[in-house]
Amino acid sequence: MKKEPLLFTPGPLTTSKRTKKSMLIDYGSWDEDFNEITNKIRSKLVKIVNGNNTYTCTPIQGSGSFGVEAMFINFVKKNEKILILINGAYGERIKKICNYHKIKNVSFKWKEDEPLNLTILEKRLKTDPSIKNLAFVHCETSTGILNPINEVSKLCKKYKINLLIDAMSTFGAIQIDAKKIKFKALAASSNKCIEGVPGMAFVISKISDLKGSRGNSDNLCMDLYDQWDYMQRTGRWRYTPPTHVAVAFLEALNQFEKEGGLISRNKKYSNNLDALLTGMKSLGFKSLLAKKDQSPIIVTFIAPESKKFNFKNFYQFLKNRGYIIYPGKMSKIDSFRIGCIGQINPNIIRKLVKVIEIFIVKNKININ
Amino acid sequence: MKKEPLLFTPGPLTTSKRTKKSMLIDYGSWDEDFNEITNKIRSKLVKIVNGNNTYTCTPIQGSGSFGVEAMFINFVKKNEKILILINGAYGERIKKICNYHKIKNVSFKWKEDEPLNLTILEKRLKTDPSIKNLAFVHCETSTGILNPINEVSKLCKKYKINLLIDAMSTFGAIQIDAKKIKFKALAASSNKCIEGVPGMAFVISKISDLKGSRGNSDNLCMDLYDQWDYMQRTGRWRYTPPTHVAVAFLEALNQFEKEGGLISRNKKYSNNLDALLTGMKSLGFKSLLAKKDQSPIIVTFIAPESKKFNFKNFYQFLKNRGYIIYPGKMSKIDSFRIGCIGQINPNIIRKLVKVIEIFIVKNKININ
Repeated sequence: MKKEPLLFTPGPLTTSKRTKKSMLIDYGSWDEDFNEITNKIRSKLVKIVNGNNTYTCTPIQGSGSFGVEAMFINFVKKNEKILILINGAYGERIKKICNYHKIKNVSFKWKEDEPLNLTILEKRLKTDPSIKNLAFVHCETSTGILNPINEVSKLCKKYKINLLIDAMSTFGAIQIDAKKIKFKALAASSNKCIEGVPGMAFVISKISDLKGSRGNSDNLCMDLYDQWDYMQRTGRWRYTPPTHVAVAFLEALNQFEKEGGLISRNKKYSNNLDALLTGMKSLGFKSLLAKKDQSPIIVTFIAPESKKFNFKNFYQFLKNRGYIIYPGKMSKIDSFRIGCIGQINPNIIRKLVKVIEIFIVKNKININ
Repeated sequence: MKKEPLLFTPGPLTTSKRTKKSMLIDYGSWDEDFNEITNKIRSKLVKIVNGNNTYTCTPIQGSGSFGVEAMFINFVKKNEKILILINGAYGERIKKICNYHKIKNVSFKWKEDEPLNLTILEKRLKTDPSIKNLAFVHCETSTGILNPINEVSKLCKKYKINLLIDAMSTFGAIQIDAKKIKFKALAASSNKCIEGVPGMAFVISKISDLKGSRGNSDNLCMDLYDQWDYMQRTGRWRYTPPTHVAVAFLEALNQFEKEGGLISRNKKYSNNLDALLTGMKSLGFKSLLAKKDQSPIIVTFIAPESKKFNFKNFYQFLKNRGYIIYPGKMSKIDSFRIGCIGQINPNIIRKLVKVIEIFIVKNKININ
């Protein structure tokens, strides 16, 4: 078998052997054993946001973006204006989704490497009472910035605006407490901080809000109400579920709980972040964001200006030694990204930093 | 580890150990190794329909239905009338898709257990020149009936109508030759006759037709042109691919080729069908369809009228002995289904029939 590399990517990421091994069984998609797996996944996910029995989780086939698109077409009415907060590629993607579905939308943009200015945001909400919905990306993975969920949630409450959260890369690692954050819906996926494999997404909402969304969807496969309603009645997914992906997701959720849940996961990733920042700083690398805005999910590093630095060579050098990093996704600055999530730890990160040092020294790259 | 049951279901089905084991590696979704996997899958799939370099394959995340929905919203213009051939649940699903997207549609319905009447169909096409597209389900899995693709294709050619094929449960086992069948697009998925695991679908079309579909999609994630265009430029999927599912699909495709491709697969399933029909007939069971209309994919058996026969008990009895069968999906008749596809063979089928016999004898069920 091929040697497995370690992934320093924002998901798909390195999952545990146990998680992968759970995929060695073929389940019948109609069978009760599989229904039980689906049920367990759904209730465990609701528990992570402290949702009580008024909340529900609707899984959907596909990648995280399928979950995000499904969330907007189900929970936002086309003629009820949505304000999209944009400081990176995932905010932009939501705008694209709204445009595809002709959902009336306006944008609130700010610089990718700066924190959200809440005063200006509040002014905007105050002066435009036609805004009924707000789209919020919790961690903008294109840079790794953590956007201020508590403050934005308070503003939404104050101005009676529905909050829709793209919680893709924070779910399970950074708390979103349904008792404190009044979201209309949030979307995430199997292959991020819960450390499952990619292939399914999910949307969490109040049952009453989901019932109220009936008839909103302009897409059959993405009709969350229909998916949920069928699942409630039969225990089964409407259309073929990604059985192996679901089984691995439950296995990953079991490990997540056993390891101490969200608090432990947060600590693990924060330790990874510290090891990464310390190590890279010692080599002279600068990370993009101020420490207070930096998520423990993924870090953007500024690429050295030196002409001797070439990302492709850098990537290949690390890959040959078993480490897969991620390219930058910034609009203007040359950068690369290193993830803190998945089955990695500070020791592994220190090894990665050592290999990066070898590359830098070997190629005589001046970082500053 | 849990003992694995054998699946007599129309997909997800029993895959080979080799296929499942290929999922024990986490791939980076941005990495060239994974791009190569995607590329190989795409070209192998085009080869199966004898598509030359004017054809292309666009994969999409999700179940088969996601591929079918994507096909219709990309390749059919909302105002260009489509005739939907309906003799079961999957034809009905296409109608539902068209209604969701406000695609102008009319239906051509006939009885689930009868072959298509081509004379009446031709009359319909002749008298309504506003029909520009035709939706065709190759094997209607709800009964197992094989619909006549060559004849329908000829009619489409004669009346200059675009043919859109739901080839979900035939792809790889029943020939659809692009040189003979002039389809606009066909959709299928990873977890049927190629014997991969569920989680991705794909659409095959001419490159020129795909280019012509640009701007048609009313859904971002299901925009096939956009997915294809990005893949051509970068080698990567637009949004997170189901990496493990894709790796398993390539492994299944490699085995498919090694075993002799479509002709061997067809023979294998036909042998399974023969063993199944012979065995069940010997117990007194009647299958729904005439032999000439019966696909080698899945068989519908009429449930015994005896009050002693209860499907739930029957299912559980077989399951306890390691065999998972499938419920019926007919609108009026009580039935159950047994699949012929996946990693099963005539010997295994004879064992299943033996267990069915034990159930029948034990419960003193009169089948006739």
